[in-house]
Amino acid sequence: MRILFHAAGHKPAPWLEGLKAALPEAAVAEWAPGAPPADYAVVWAPSQQMLDEQPQLKALFNTGAGVDALLQLRLPPHAQLVRLDDAGMSVQMAEFVCQAVIRHFRELDGYEADMRAGKWSFRKPRLRAEWPVGVMGLGVLGARVARALQQFEFTVNGWSRSPRQLEGVRCFAGRGQLDDFLAASRILVCLLPLTPDTENILDRHTLGRLMPGGYLVNAARGRHLVEPDLLALLEQGQLAGATLDVLREEPPPPEHPFWRHPRITLTPHTSARTLRDESIAQIAGKIRAMERGEPVAGVVDRTRGY
Amino acid sequence: MRILFHAAGHKPAPWLEGLKAALPEAAVAEWAPGAPPADYAVVWAPSQQMLDEQPQLKALFNTGAGVDALLQLRLPPHAQLVRLDDAGMSVQMAEFVCQAVIRHFRELDGYEADMRAGKWSFRKPRLRAEWPVGVMGLGVLGARVARALQQFEFTVNGWSRSPRQLEGVRCFAGRGQLDDFLAASRILVCLLPLTPDTENILDRHTLGRLMPGGYLVNAARGRHLVEPDLLALLEQGQLAGATLDVLREEPPPPEHPFWRHPRITLTPHTSARTLRDESIAQIAGKIRAMERGEPVAGVVDRTRGY
Repeated sequence: MRILFHAAGHKPAPWLEGLKAALPEAAVAEWAPGAPPADYAVVWAPSQQMLDEQPQLKALFNTGAGVDALLQLRLPPHAQLVRLDDAGMSVQMAEFVCQAVIRHFRELDGYEADMRAGKWSFRKPRLRAEWPVGVMGLGVLGARVARALQQFEFTVNGWSRSPRQLEGVRCFAGRGQLDDFLAASRILVCLLPLTPDTENILDRHTLGRLMPGGYLVNAARGRHLVEPDLLALLEQGQLAGATLDVLREEPPPPEHPFWRHPRITLTPHTSARTLRDESIAQIAGKIRAMERGEPVAGVVDRTRGY
Repeated sequence: MRILFHAAGHKPAPWLEGLKAALPEAAVAEWAPGAPPADYAVVWAPSQQMLDEQPQLKALFNTGAGVDALLQLRLPPHAQLVRLDDAGMSVQMAEFVCQAVIRHFRELDGYEADMRAGKWSFRKPRLRAEWPVGVMGLGVLGARVARALQQFEFTVNGWSRSPRQLEGVRCFAGRGQLDDFLAASRILVCLLPLTPDTENILDRHTLGRLMPGGYLVNAARGRHLVEPDLLALLEQGQLAGATLDVLREEPPPPEHPFWRHPRITLTPHTSARTLRDESIAQIAGKIRAMERGEPVAGVVDRTRGY
């Protein structure tokens, strides 16, 4: 069995070592042009040349949860596309979203800024009942985030493409129920996969339907959000602010208006980082299962896009 | 039955209305000098004169969880001292502590500052296993905070005066086990009651025993912390930073070094605010129970101090 590693932005040595240690029966190598045909490839943003040179690949393992970039490429015809499921990412996402929601709900940004300005101030505590949180996307990440928010006693609404049931979550499904979902939510958390159906889903129409003083947390993909629409709604006061971990262009150009916007909190696509050891263990386990002819979790439906 | 209300910093009207609505059989009034003898008093930082004029009081209901200030006063001899237990405070405390722990562990303050400076940066993800959290004080608040932290998969250690058992928490008790507790923790969360035993418990010796690069979250009382010792440990690099919701003097004087310290995050004693409706309902329920001769939760042991 041969495994190729070809993941932009990842230091190759520890990945190669880790994969070799986890699969001692395999020949593991970094891809280079003209590499001999392999069975499996571990990739992040691979080159089109690599994919074209390796039509026999049985599976491509993506080192992240989102496969939208991969689906833009011409893929080996029979290769299964396997995304990372969880591997320590859902707890990170729960952390990221909870801290963003808590900080806005509890006005901690405002309190900390007051203190830095030498001002000891009190604000009237907000009533939790007036701050329902809507989670878009109820897969592994969305379900974990909903559960974490419930623990802090928030009312949680959920929206997904096809109907889901999550304990204690008021679930909405499909475009037909999107407006009702938005109207019932004040803080909106986007954890959707990026597909042609969900691109630009966060625009002036959808965001404008949130409860007054709404707040957006986007930890999915930059292309879910129509960025000028967010600016306009902030300007008009219909939205109170946003925490964005992702942008349409990463990093954004120096003149991008979000960099220093007073009501936008930015982080550099760090909400749920790929953890190497967990990821290697998961990928090795799936390769073993495939070799035994068993099904594995996280296989992408190419027509659906996730 | 007569009930007096005498709570500094609370708008009296909604409290009086709420208590009257919850206990229509009672005469509820704001205290003024010379008020007729009452059965119960609802207080926050009451005047010594009020306490001296009402020696017949059966119980004093404190509108907060900490009774340290009250215990400095000369109290009616037979009055039970009843603190607020929970009434919406423990979920607030869980929120406050989790966001402080998550922000430090995930370096979100640093990422956000980078972004404000126009810098798109990556840091190596920290390993959760290297960031055990120690919770001092395992009462209603501490237990709730420990549970919330466990949900984010942190290793949680607990320390209390007398031995406790909490599922999944490595519990230490008494001064004899304090050093071991500290040495096993990297982030330290103080939720202790303030008593002569716990005053100044956070000093150079205790804080210096945390794992290297330790971090302090104090959401209890300012007098738990020897403030110059924290500054010295930050200066020496033994501690990485602190989030402080409480200070020895509140608000601190303008020249206080914490106001703008780059590694101290300050909030104005807002981690767990008294929620009026929940508090009124709880106090009314306890008054009813006492009238029926039943025991109530939250009665302070004056010798122990909490």
